[in-house]
Amino acid sequence: MTQHKIVTAAILAIGDELLSGRTKDKNIGYLAENLTIYGIDLKEVRIVADDQDAIVAAVNALRMKYDLVFTSGGIGPTHDDITADAISAAFGLPCVHDAEAMRLLGAMYERRGIEFNEARQRMARMPQGARHIENAVSTAPGFIVGNVHVMAGVPSVFQAMVGWLLPQLPTGVPVMSRTVVSPFGEGEIGKPLTEVQKNHADTSIGSYPKFDGNGFYTEIVVRARDEAVLQAAVADVEAMLDAIRQTRDSARA
Amino acid sequence: MTQHKIVTAAILAIGDELLSGRTKDKNIGYLAENLTIYGIDLKEVRIVADDQDAIVAAVNALRMKYDLVFTSGGIGPTHDDITADAISAAFGLPCVHDAEAMRLLGAMYERRGIEFNEARQRMARMPQGARHIENAVSTAPGFIVGNVHVMAGVPSVFQAMVGWLLPQLPTGVPVMSRTVVSPFGEGEIGKPLTEVQKNHADTSIGSYPKFDGNGFYTEIVVRARDEAVLQAAVADVEAMLDAIRQTRDSARA
Repeated sequence: MTQHKIVTAAILAIGDELLSGRTKDKNIGYLAENLTIYGIDLKEVRIVADDQDAIVAAVNALRMKYDLVFTSGGIGPTHDDITADAISAAFGLPCVHDAEAMRLLGAMYERRGIEFNEARQRMARMPQGARHIENAVSTAPGFIVGNVHVMAGVPSVFQAMVGWLLPQLPTGVPVMSRTVVSPFGEGEIGKPLTEVQKNHADTSIGSYPKFDGNGFYTEIVVRARDEAVLQAAVADVEAMLDAIRQTRDSARA
Repeated sequence: MTQHKIVTAAILAIGDELLSGRTKDKNIGYLAENLTIYGIDLKEVRIVADDQDAIVAAVNALRMKYDLVFTSGGIGPTHDDITADAISAAFGLPCVHDAEAMRLLGAMYERRGIEFNEARQRMARMPQGARHIENAVSTAPGFIVGNVHVMAGVPSVFQAMVGWLLPQLPTGVPVMSRTVVSPFGEGEIGKPLTEVQKNHADTSIGSYPKFDGNGFYTEIVVRARDEAVLQAAVADVEAMLDAIRQTRDSARA
């Protein structure tokens, strides 16, 4: 089996509003999809409250375990935005008003004739020595400390930050995937599909039941990092479905 | 401050397809919203792959820490559905074909003239002694072991299971919430809102920036378990916004 370079990642979404169900998260799915494109393997996602102990525990668990950690939420100007403090605490670093962030934000508010008050200055706070993640939408930067990438929760801002950040990260060999739609439910294909998976151990074959109101059909997704490996497994999945069709036809005949 | 009965919970969503971004999760937001209605405090969410070690580690961490754990995904009939095995392993219980589940599924397939084959029988597997969670959509039950509630990943089935399950759970005093829309961005209200939060320590005040293309406005959400406590804080938030409006008007005059 070919050895491919693997880069692993976790996402930590932060916010009471996600846990109350008031806000339906859009950032996890968006970043998950983009990490797949860049060949970064997302291994785990957590959502925690705006609570310093919960954020510190989660970020420390995840940064030790995975190559890259991405957070969303809690870097705005109000009292419930405590992500910069919590990430600083997790790294044992002081949380400071970053000089360059103060300059960027100060200039932006001056241009717009808006007071750069204490609350707005909170958005310049980050762990001492952190690098910036550019924010093309509303200026206030995200930041990088160690392997942790801290971004905004507002989806338009989060997406702009992801767009700036991803091309700069170490990436792995992307996983390719092919979907084969099976008209048969999982109960029908379960056993033969297990055989196909066993015969193609260097692929990952997922089976996703879909319910359309009348009954179940199945989307079979084959994943691999090598095109030839992928094609061989897809061919066997298709042959398996043909075999089921023929068995049904001969039963009817 | 009144002591209210608090019931805490975590959600564990299981599935490679959620981490690849191929499927955008709908179950977390749905259950989060319903838990809030029932007065159950959702404290943490995790998403992990169809990987036994990852599922065991997550479910054991969460069931020790919270009163209730809810899982979604991985209880179908195919090789990648390993949640029943993983939950059994987490509890050190044998994973068996449950007699009552075999009977329910067997009868359903017989009615429909469909073979109750080995793959379909997999859906009757659960930790020995587990109780069922009813599945009004497609019969195959979810199950309860200890404080862990294992449900399907297909949203229509998940929702049916949640609908059956929630009325039977221990619930807390629901958190009430009121939303005040602020025309001012977070930078404007940040400092006075911090004061309001300090003066109403038995409420939780969240501030959610919204970006409408022209600029930011803010939704301020006040939460409390007591109506009088809630109203007093909401009144102070509204007074705070009036004060900002008056300052602006007098600056223009």
